[in-house]
Amino acid sequence: MTAPKTSWVNSANDGQTHFPLQNLPYGIFSTTGGAARVGVAIGNQIVDLAALDDAGLMPTAAKGAFAASSLNRFIALGKPVWTDVRARLTALLSADDQRLSGNVALRDKALVPMSAATLHLPVDIPGYTDFYSSREHATNVGRMFRDPENALLPNWLEIPIGYNGRASSVVVSGTALHRPNGQIKLPNEARPIFSPCRKLDYELEMAFIVGKPSNLGEPVSTGDAPAHMFGLVILNDWSARDIQQWEYVPLGPFNSKSFGTSISPWVVTMDALEPFRRENPAQSPEPLPYLQQQGQNAYDIDLEVALQPAGATAASTVCRTNFKAMYWTMAQQLAHHTVSGCNVRIGDLMGSGTISGTTSDSCGSLLETTRNGAEPVTLADGAKRGFLEDGDTVTMTGWCQGEGYRVGFGEVTGKILPAR
Amino acid sequence: MTAPKTSWVNSANDGQTHFPLQNLPYGIFSTTGGAARVGVAIGNQIVDLAALDDAGLMPTAAKGAFAASSLNRFIALGKPVWTDVRARLTALLSADDQRLSGNVALRDKALVPMSAATLHLPVDIPGYTDFYSSREHATNVGRMFRDPENALLPNWLEIPIGYNGRASSVVVSGTALHRPNGQIKLPNEARPIFSPCRKLDYELEMAFIVGKPSNLGEPVSTGDAPAHMFGLVILNDWSARDIQQWEYVPLGPFNSKSFGTSISPWVVTMDALEPFRRENPAQSPEPLPYLQQQGQNAYDIDLEVALQPAGATAASTVCRTNFKAMYWTMAQQLAHHTVSGCNVRIGDLMGSGTISGTTSDSCGSLLETTRNGAEPVTLADGAKRGFLEDGDTVTMTGWCQGEGYRVGFGEVTGKILPAR
Repeated sequence: MTAPKTSWVNSANDGQTHFPLQNLPYGIFSTTGGAARVGVAIGNQIVDLAALDDAGLMPTAAKGAFAASSLNRFIALGKPVWTDVRARLTALLSADDQRLSGNVALRDKALVPMSAATLHLPVDIPGYTDFYSSREHATNVGRMFRDPENALLPNWLEIPIGYNGRASSVVVSGTALHRPNGQIKLPNEARPIFSPCRKLDYELEMAFIVGKPSNLGEPVSTGDAPAHMFGLVILNDWSARDIQQWEYVPLGPFNSKSFGTSISPWVVTMDALEPFRRENPAQSPEPLPYLQQQGQNAYDIDLEVALQPAGATAASTVCRTNFKAMYWTMAQQLAHHTVSGCNVRIGDLMGSGTISGTTSDSCGSLLETTRNGAEPVTLADGAKRGFLEDGDTVTMTGWCQGEGYRVGFGEVTGKILPAR
Repeated sequence: MTAPKTSWVNSANDGQTHFPLQNLPYGIFSTTGGAARVGVAIGNQIVDLAALDDAGLMPTAAKGAFAASSLNRFIALGKPVWTDVRARLTALLSADDQRLSGNVALRDKALVPMSAATLHLPVDIPGYTDFYSSREHATNVGRMFRDPENALLPNWLEIPIGYNGRASSVVVSGTALHRPNGQIKLPNEARPIFSPCRKLDYELEMAFIVGKPSNLGEPVSTGDAPAHMFGLVILNDWSARDIQQWEYVPLGPFNSKSFGTSISPWVVTMDALEPFRRENPAQSPEPLPYLQQQGQNAYDIDLEVALQPAGATAASTVCRTNFKAMYWTMAQQLAHHTVSGCNVRIGDLMGSGTISGTTSDSCGSLLETTRNGAEPVTLADGAKRGFLEDGDTVTMTGWCQGEGYRVGFGEVTGKILPAR
């Protein structure tokens, strides 16, 4: 095994950090009294790209793109600039480079400990689409919400099913959310009641962020799709199952999802994920031609969900799974999204759908893990959960395992506050 | 009958124009070589508000808000400023006022004939939601897509059903759209085919534009809802019925709608619509408390749809209906949208759902008018339409009938180009 390339930022080299020199994910951060700006995570530090730009250390083509409260301006510069900036940062942060490490004044200014920073939503999101691309998840949900005998609907193996989500309520990791109120239809009542949600759930997803727009009326092929992706985040698609079951026919989920969607703060670029591309999943029947794909469009990303009740001393892992198990790939999702002529924009967020494996401890939602609450999961301190209770904190994390290093996503976490 | 108040812009006084002194709708326009900016329609003219602002004729609080390519900056100033600007414009354009009419140089600069202007999308739309609030429409569609005996689903009389639409593909009136391609499931085939849509349709809707944001976790009551509305437009929710029928279970319409949604260019303000408020529709069962409402939340707006094939000498009116017939009001829609805690933002577009009456000539879609194509409508020149053909132009218009004047919306029009 070759030792991975190292950084002069020591915390980037321990083999466990999510943010080694091989990663360099982008985010938006601020420190006390300062404006929000673009940073890159390295070990337990954030590199302030606006400061590097002011010092003349960033590529000229990116001039002025980092003193911004979202990544959109930088992303809009296009892939050649992303590549240049990544190459420059890789050089500047390498163990043998002195330009930044040897300039104490600049280093003090441009390196911010993560513990001293506040992280913000990394992108302005003009549109949020959520897919439904795990066969196991679709089967599990179909079994509980519809017909156990025909759990997978006839269109599911033909279409990377997706729907439009609500972009306004996408929040960054760490944002607490109130349990939503809404209409619930109890089985023995003639009419619905208005009540705090009684079946509050999470959904473990990955999401890609669009980096290159498309024009109205011009589909993006599966082959071109990867060039339209800037990077990935982890997404928690919080879901109110009882509200969802009553409202979703015929136009899909609405209030059951729109009270909040959480994403991880660091956008891991497609460049950083390149070594972790894997073979496309087997698909039968063979998809229609516009959905057929070449190359490797699956990604090997280990994922975990942990749940920690209020007052508990530790979080309990309730799910371990991997992103590569998805039936439909992101390239297929984007090709399908645009095949009608629908355009995409920079910053669009495209959720994968809940990522579930075949066993209860690999399911990406409590609905599946606990079979709609019937088989509660037992946590480390003995507490049981069918669905989420007030005070619970859900934390999702994910990483790609390299040889001696990890390219990680950090985490997306959120606490449930009582209903208002 | 009292004669309505008149303007020194003569074309505003004929009783037929959609844009008399009583209306003053806002839009975004440009002229050859000029930047897009805010204008107000009066008769057959556009008043350039950026020019009036430069000349010191606009309220100080609105300074700089009109040299912008969307209304969002102006809207964000809030209701007191909207009221001030409307009052100022009403005064400046009144027959007895000399400040603008008597200043030839300024008048020449600030008054632009509509025929010389290009109209743009009036708002940046961070989110587009589409409701489904006509009982007649929901019943007609349920009868054709689902069970004729139980056409109205059990949740419909309890929930102002809505779903998230795709904001990226909302276009201004006049934008031609290509017939979408997509998956269609033919009745006798085992698998879907990929094909240009064969059942292309329009949907006649009104839509309100959010003028005041709400915070995540803070519902807007039906009583507060009107204060969150800036104005209304006509919306054509183009729909690919065959794609829709195959894709919409279980997460709702997606590609069947996302290839384009057209809106009229002039935003008619709630202030201009105030005289046309009508009693709330009767609702049975009585809605849950959070949906109950006081006052008058229905609006008396006459609506028409016309269809003109390529080469036809005239358009044929295929629908006449009225917005006041909707079952759920806009106040109820907004209260429901936010009751989960979902936030709304300035510029959010909220479609009413297709507006249909009880007769085939009052249906807001061809799906209903022609009973899914089975009973084609005959146009003026003898052509028949089950659904839209390439080259067809659909034009929707609407107005409130006052005493001797109309507060109108102009029109939203769009032509269907062949599939790519």
